[in-house]
Amino acid sequence: MASSTLRVVVWGENVHEHINAKVAAVYPQGMHTVIAAGLRELLPTAEVSTATLQEAEHGLTEARLAETDVLTWWGHKAHGDVSDEVVARVQKRVLEGMGLIVLHSGHFSKIFKRLMGTTCSLTWREADEKERLWVCNPGHPIAQGLGPYFELPREEMYGEPFGVPPPEEQVFISWFEGGEVFRSGCCYTRGNGKIFYFRPGHETYPTYFDANVRRVLANAVEWARPPATRWVDCCPNAKNPLEKITPKG
Amino acid sequence: MASSTLRVVVWGENVHEHINAKVAAVYPQGMHTVIAAGLRELLPTAEVSTATLQEAEHGLTEARLAETDVLTWWGHKAHGDVSDEVVARVQKRVLEGMGLIVLHSGHFSKIFKRLMGTTCSLTWREADEKERLWVCNPGHPIAQGLGPYFELPREEMYGEPFGVPPPEEQVFISWFEGGEVFRSGCCYTRGNGKIFYFRPGHETYPTYFDANVRRVLANAVEWARPPATRWVDCCPNAKNPLEKITPKG
Amino acid sequence: MASSTLRVVVWGENVHEHINAKVAAVYPQGMHTVIAAGLRELLPTAEVSTATLQEAEHGLTEARLAETDVLTWWGHKAHGDVSDEVVARVQKRVLEGMGLIVLHSGHFSKIFKRLMGTTCSLTWREADEKERLWVCNPGHPIAQGLGPYFELPREEMYGEPFGVPPPEEQVFISWFEGGEVFRSGCCYTRGNGKIFYFRPGHETYPTYFDANVRRVLANAVEWARPPATRWVDCCPNAKNPLEKITPKG
Amino acid sequence: MASSTLRVVVWGENVHEHINAKVAAVYPQGMHTVIAAGLRELLPTAEVSTATLQEAEHGLTEARLAETDVLTWWGHKAHGDVSDEVVARVQKRVLEGMGLIVLHSGHFSKIFKRLMGTTCSLTWREADEKERLWVCNPGHPIAQGLGPYFELPREEMYGEPFGVPPPEEQVFISWFEGGEVFRSGCCYTRGNGKIFYFRPGHETYPTYFDANVRRVLANAVEWARPPATRWVDCCPNAKNPLEKITPKG
Repeated sequence: MASSTLRVVVWGENVHEHINAKVAAVYPQGMHTVIAAGLRELLPTAEVSTATLQEAEHGLTEARLAETDVLTWWGHKAHGDVSDEVVARVQKRVLEGMGLIVLHSGHFSKIFKRLMGTTCSLTWREADEKERLWVCNPGHPIAQGLGPYFELPREEMYGEPFGVPPPEEQVFISWFEGGEVFRSGCCYTRGNGKIFYFRPGHETYPTYFDANVRRVLANAVEWARPPATRWVDCCPNAKNPLEKITPKG
Repeated sequence: MASSTLRVVVWGENVHEHINAKVAAVYPQGMHTVIAAGLRELLPTAEVSTATLQEAEHGLTEARLAETDVLTWWGHKAHGDVSDEVVARVQKRVLEGMGLIVLHSGHFSKIFKRLMGTTCSLTWREADEKERLWVCNPGHPIAQGLGPYFELPREEMYGEPFGVPPPEEQVFISWFEGGEVFRSGCCYTRGNGKIFYFRPGHETYPTYFDANVRRVLANAVEWARPPATRWVDCCPNAKNPLEKITPKG
Repeated sequence: MASSTLRVVVWGENVHEHINAKVAAVYPQGMHTVIAAGLRELLPTAEVSTATLQEAEHGLTEARLAETDVLTWWGHKAHGDVSDEVVARVQKRVLEGMGLIVLHSGHFSKIFKRLMGTTCSLTWREADEKERLWVCNPGHPIAQGLGPYFELPREEMYGEPFGVPPPEEQVFISWFEGGEVFRSGCCYTRGNGKIFYFRPGHETYPTYFDANVRRVLANAVEWARPPATRWVDCCPNAKNPLEKITPKG
Repeated sequence: MASSTLRVVVWGENVHEHINAKVAAVYPQGMHTVIAAGLRELLPTAEVSTATLQEAEHGLTEARLAETDVLTWWGHKAHGDVSDEVVARVQKRVLEGMGLIVLHSGHFSKIFKRLMGTTCSLTWREADEKERLWVCNPGHPIAQGLGPYFELPREEMYGEPFGVPPPEEQVFISWFEGGEVFRSGCCYTRGNGKIFYFRPGHETYPTYFDANVRRVLANAVEWARPPATRWVDCCPNAKNPLEKITPKG
């Protein structure tokens, strides 16, 4: 399943960029191209490509997913337009071992809600406010190369309660200028796959140009690399017992 | 959400009992009636009723679920016949706080797979074999009143790997005569709801007459009682910040 | 182990109150008396008593602990004066099933560090600052009866990283006026015992008079009630196997 | 903290080998030398050395531990002879990031009990019985290169309940010929350090010559490699707030 070269697909909804001048001004080539550029900068040996909602099968064919080690997902306005078939396909690949990095408003994507089984709800506010992300697990691979915290001068606020299963590892917790807190970096394993939810990334701010955010994404992609072997998860009938079973009366 | 009287609905697929003479011989009135009788015996103050696949809306209308504290679920042959609408409704109620006890082959039910987000796969064998369930968490509410282990003389085997998220609490692990092991009692929280998966209960064996199994189910139903208050999980806009936000440039 | 009446012992270091006029002004009878009064108010059927460092065996004799269901612990200045023998005794009782509620600066107590196995370190600041505790698990028993958050107008700050094992359940996360966040309500099980760490409670502030804090403490004490049966944890030799073992060559 | 070359110290109690002819026959140069040989075979670029109880400071001086990435620990008969000072030193290094692999009867070592905070008790039997270890987490780094299970023809039995905190990841569960089960591969993080407990390894059996056991140990040592940066965990006073604190009345 894994190859020596890390193969990353950056998926972008790619809608806001075409209908909102403010977003287009920050990300004229689309958010996905900036996220991909950040990964290429920090992971020069990785193969990083992009895919968008508008492509056939949203750019996520069976064949392409079969050769993807880690997928990143940004969506917001068009969650409902993602085909259920593609969502099922992505879920299957995650359970086989593909890593998945879910970004910001992707908390409400079909794929994240399906993998979590919960509402993935939260509170929110758009008010140009400061976010400070604190590292609460300094030894975690995703936190390497960061200081004790980093700041984003303007972001959308997300607040608790975050309607997700208890994270297996908590990497970041955010402080917001307006008074809220949020579990901003949450790790999960599902089947053979590793999942990381990372909060920042509102479309009207240059968050994906930020050096610390880029460091987090590169670390997360490395962390989510699939295991060497694939779990063929087919509910097999173990017809022949390993031990003798006494016939019952 | 919670009432002082514990209101339990025992859901049964109720198919094997009508087409398999062996099952009908063990459970002539249906497996659900025996599961319900066990709960009534040990929880005399609870209100225990049953619902089946064949009823309108599978017996799980909005109104009834709104007045259900804990739902138990046994299904096997007809998972695909459960309507997606009812599954979504049950999931919503679990996230609001309703307890859910998933039994045996219910590991592959739509509702369990949806709440777990994983394949819920396992290995299996039907060979009249002995199962011994070990308590690995003696202080857990679900293990109260049991000895260090209990046995079922004949059961279907389920073996690892079990394709579920890491359980939050592990209450039982099974030893099988044929050589396998299985995580037979797994606890989860999802939203406000508590979920317990309990392995035994193959339709051709009198498992739901067993005193220890009945004790586990009664304990689990008590454990899964909803919290006093309901989480209205609506992704609210926290428009008015609690703290002053400095206007940015 | 458990009795129908909940028996709570509130342990207080009881040092600051006698040497610091500011503390004495807030808690003239000692912090422990105010904590105990809050529990008595909200749990009228519980038997609540107090114990202090200065008593023989710190008021925690074998006999008394044997009849204690839940112990609360506040210490700061004199952690080193608590005898190792009493600490070992308390640890043993927690592993048998006694609940333990560790308060504020108790994060550095011998008993908490011994049960966690980690440094239990954090960052801190005394600056009369506002703390806002957010509920991130609204269905948790410890959060019942609270709103989405509550505030303490003046508290000491504790900040991440908090050097504890990953909490099994996260009930509260704090926002601080000065810019930090902290995992303020953390649940653990150790052996048969339940442990809750609750952050607020600096000695110079009237925190233990606060209605929300009192609600949390009463809920936590109820939540930490021991299971009905006691795990006799003696590393027994299971000399006689349950299954026949084939003699090897 | 980490170096590019993985530096492993294999610690052996080294007592049974000198007083029990049966053990000496299997491990004439000591168990630690065989464990070290297995690691050298599978991790040819690692620097693997050994240390024993009998050496000054048990071979674990401050200087040596400072240059150790991962420590493996086998002890049984002489747990009480390990100096508390050395135990505190090892614990400190684990919390800083050093990996720790605890083997078999090391479940009752001072260092494991101190890091877990619990009794670490279990049930046991010496009866030349077969153990079968099932992989319950096929995607875990420690399970790579193994089949769905592996067997040891003769081992001591360890049974549930195992008195440890809930494992963060469960890699193996054992089936025993005599009828018990055991959580045989348990992962923990404590501070920056990773801890893996691995059950097999009774001194009278050639377990550490087994190819699957050697694969597990090599995988575990790789998995437990320290993070790149060190958490200086000193409970710092964050005297200067990042945000302005309003002076209170």
